[in-house]
Amino acid sequence: MTIADFLDRAELGFRDSPGVVDEPQQPAPPVPVASYGRFAERVRAWQAGLDALGVGEGERVAVASHNSARLLELLFAVPMSGRICVPVNFRLKPEEVDYVVAQSGASVLLVDPELDAGLSEVKAPHRFVLGEQTEAGLMRFGTEPRPWSQPDEDATATINYTSGTTARPKGVQLTHRNIWVNGMTFGLHTRVWEGDVYLHTLPMFHCNGWGMPYVMAGLGVKQVVLRKVDGTEILRRVDEHGVTLMCGAPAVWNMVLDAAATWEGEVPGRDRVRIVCAGAPPPTRTIQRVQEELGWEFTQLYGLTETSPMLTFNRTRPADAALPAEERARKLSRAGLPALGVKLKVSESGEVLARSNTVLDGYWDKPEETAEALEDGWFHTGDGGTLDPGDGHLTISDRKKDVIITGGENVSSIEVEDTIFSHPAVAEVAVIGVPHEKWGETIKALVVLAEGATADESDIIAHCKQHMAGYKAPTSVEFRESIPRTATGKIQKFKLRQPYWAGVERGVN
Amino acid sequence: MTIADFLDRAELGFRDSPGVVDEPQQPAPPVPVASYGRFAERVRAWQAGLDALGVGEGERVAVASHNSARLLELLFAVPMSGRICVPVNFRLKPEEVDYVVAQSGASVLLVDPELDAGLSEVKAPHRFVLGEQTEAGLMRFGTEPRPWSQPDEDATATINYTSGTTARPKGVQLTHRNIWVNGMTFGLHTRVWEGDVYLHTLPMFHCNGWGMPYVMAGLGVKQVVLRKVDGTEILRRVDEHGVTLMCGAPAVWNMVLDAAATWEGEVPGRDRVRIVCAGAPPPTRTIQRVQEELGWEFTQLYGLTETSPMLTFNRTRPADAALPAEERARKLSRAGLPALGVKLKVSESGEVLARSNTVLDGYWDKPEETAEALEDGWFHTGDGGTLDPGDGHLTISDRKKDVIITGGENVSSIEVEDTIFSHPAVAEVAVIGVPHEKWGETIKALVVLAEGATADESDIIAHCKQHMAGYKAPTSVEFRESIPRTATGKIQKFKLRQPYWAGVERGVN
Repeated sequence: MTIADFLDRAELGFRDSPGVVDEPQQPAPPVPVASYGRFAERVRAWQAGLDALGVGEGERVAVASHNSARLLELLFAVPMSGRICVPVNFRLKPEEVDYVVAQSGASVLLVDPELDAGLSEVKAPHRFVLGEQTEAGLMRFGTEPRPWSQPDEDATATINYTSGTTARPKGVQLTHRNIWVNGMTFGLHTRVWEGDVYLHTLPMFHCNGWGMPYVMAGLGVKQVVLRKVDGTEILRRVDEHGVTLMCGAPAVWNMVLDAAATWEGEVPGRDRVRIVCAGAPPPTRTIQRVQEELGWEFTQLYGLTETSPMLTFNRTRPADAALPAEERARKLSRAGLPALGVKLKVSESGEVLARSNTVLDGYWDKPEETAEALEDGWFHTGDGGTLDPGDGHLTISDRKKDVIITGGENVSSIEVEDTIFSHPAVAEVAVIGVPHEKWGETIKALVVLAEGATADESDIIAHCKQHMAGYKAPTSVEFRESIPRTATGKIQKFKLRQPYWAGVERGVN
Repeated sequence: MTIADFLDRAELGFRDSPGVVDEPQQPAPPVPVASYGRFAERVRAWQAGLDALGVGEGERVAVASHNSARLLELLFAVPMSGRICVPVNFRLKPEEVDYVVAQSGASVLLVDPELDAGLSEVKAPHRFVLGEQTEAGLMRFGTEPRPWSQPDEDATATINYTSGTTARPKGVQLTHRNIWVNGMTFGLHTRVWEGDVYLHTLPMFHCNGWGMPYVMAGLGVKQVVLRKVDGTEILRRVDEHGVTLMCGAPAVWNMVLDAAATWEGEVPGRDRVRIVCAGAPPPTRTIQRVQEELGWEFTQLYGLTETSPMLTFNRTRPADAALPAEERARKLSRAGLPALGVKLKVSESGEVLARSNTVLDGYWDKPEETAEALEDGWFHTGDGGTLDPGDGHLTISDRKKDVIITGGENVSSIEVEDTIFSHPAVAEVAVIGVPHEKWGETIKALVVLAEGATADESDIIAHCKQHMAGYKAPTSVEFRESIPRTATGKIQKFKLRQPYWAGVERGVN
């Protein structure tokens, strides 16, 4: 049960089939359309290059890149040779990338040409810009790489950094077995087969594109790279490549719906495309519009980076096909039924706990956080929810962790609070998520200014953008006289959030 | 990764959905149509009954039964409680069943009412007739069973007896993990989902119905029990229950084709049913007729009981959909592409070797045979084959083991030889498989009579039927002056087979 199983089958059975179509608009010359045979050769060239560089098994190779064929190759090349891949969110600021590279102890850092200048200060023992530098200087074509000495399903394959309850993101260690089982289960429930065409509407750094690249390769599915999410461009690619399957957060599908409104002629993919929505609870209206305006099948997945991610899956049951559209959409807005092999329960305090072969091995170099997350042998999702006693479906009702999910990106409210607090004018701050039509949630900061100090909304936002990825900055700031606390001094976030979420459908607050 | 994962999900998500429809013609009253909730309750009643009987974890429970809802329940109940299920071929003679029960050391034997009289001599510490005796005397409804103390994916779940290179069948130990991975992989490649309806055209004792009952339950698929294979009855059930998926040997599909010829009106299931063919190489003509005369999708699987069984899978690729029917059928007659997670190679001597998470743990109480079968860390299939360097598909070209597969049943030629040799008139014997339109292969005995002795074909056949299951008896006997041997005294079976297979398509000889 290692990642090699997926690529080995692709190379054996789909040697001459179209494997990967790179984004034509890469800043480095795109990789020419690769059959899975050629893709596997390129994977070996990466491995032989890392061998020549002296990068040993178990060492970390960090990659900061937009979606690209090269990143896709590295998601296979690095773990298949017993090394650990660390895909880095391309939106992070230099300090943040620096933290990830340092905390993971990466010996190699590979960066996209567009990110090169911005990340020039980020150091690693070996640093390459993807494209010319790596094609000529790192990859070794025709050299047989050293095979992984002891392939082990429990070895860490990737470390994916995710914002959680702490200020700094934590590195989620996913093993080969985690990824293998997630891939098989995801493929089973979404009924993937070699007749599919997959479009990478999801960032590949994000839980390894949710693990889809692996099962797609294993089943010989053509994968089309999309560098940047854009509604019209998605429709164009669906049309051009005969796409049948995509994954993404609700914000992605809202963009597609907007683009469809001005699309000339029939929207492509009707009765052919199915989409998997995750990363935030989708509004019922989005679900219904996807079904009606696009004619695409809407399915939903719930999970976390810590669970590889698939925990539940929701699809309209055959028995429900005849229900009124709105009722179908309402049923689909729930997180879904636990995937095969996943056990869920709700704790007394209402938190969703999970057991599965896809639960993380641990947080990299964080034994205490790991023990806490896996207390009593269950993974603590930090989300509140309920299981329907009738059909076993999970509904997420409350996010316990101080995490805001905006446009599918996790943002730690504590991290944002830390940054705002570093502004000299700020005495107290609380950061919450408030509803947003397009992004699901957006970030709001409640600020108490220091006595005599002055600062306005734009000062605070600019300060955040200077120190953090732009998507982590609040979109609004409210100044308050004080922030209410409990007797023990704790801020009760749910109380702060309440007025903003009143009357909003599916208040995940 | 235990069998509980499948039934737990069925009970959680499909509590009120139709789970199992028993055969209406059971000799014991059939189990009423059971939702998966009810099915799970009955499974627990079996477990509580075994608890009360004092049957401990790791003990063997043998079941000799035609297909029935009760056998299906036991395939879950026994291994889910940490015990080991031993499904017994219902065609075996009392001596043969006795061997299986004794060799496995079963403490419980459950027999179908129809088999009760015939197997009256077969002893076990506890013996029950399925139906009234077990419903009232063994099963404990409403009693919570003792949970399995240490669920372990590497524990043996079932022991399935299979004829191999030795005279006596060997017990193949399949672990929970073997069965789990086989189920997931089978479900993935056959694209099973909750909209399917499955008909048990395959004997459930046969590698646990190839593992299908597990994944069907896990995905909430309605399972329709068929007690005895009959072409017209299969068509009737396909029509009545809206069946979409079935498995079986080529002989089953030939029976269906025969029945379709006299079926009144349109043959049911056109463009809806897909079938998985295995157990023997299907003739190209059968494939083509299934596609054309029935309009069912034909797919093929290759594997052995020792591999849970899925090793390869063959389905018409989307790119081949436009090929002429005959060429498509020819491509489909190959064993197929290794399933995800399966590694195959062909040894220097031409034998197909396999590595997979579905390879058996061992032969029960046969350490030498186990070591031999798993030499060098590869499972030795005993079959000769080639891998297409273009598309990676396996073709089985030669069966190395002295096993004859007739109508999907493995028969050890050595076992048949032993039995024939026990006839006082026989001096020498060689048993081979020869081509048969309906059964794929049929059994032929070449016999040298003892000097002065007399016996004719019917004597030899009757002698076999007296001592073995009927399907193991030769259908023809040829008397010879001598049987050619090598210098070391070995019979070269392939030479004996050659004249019969000359000109026969796909000579698996």
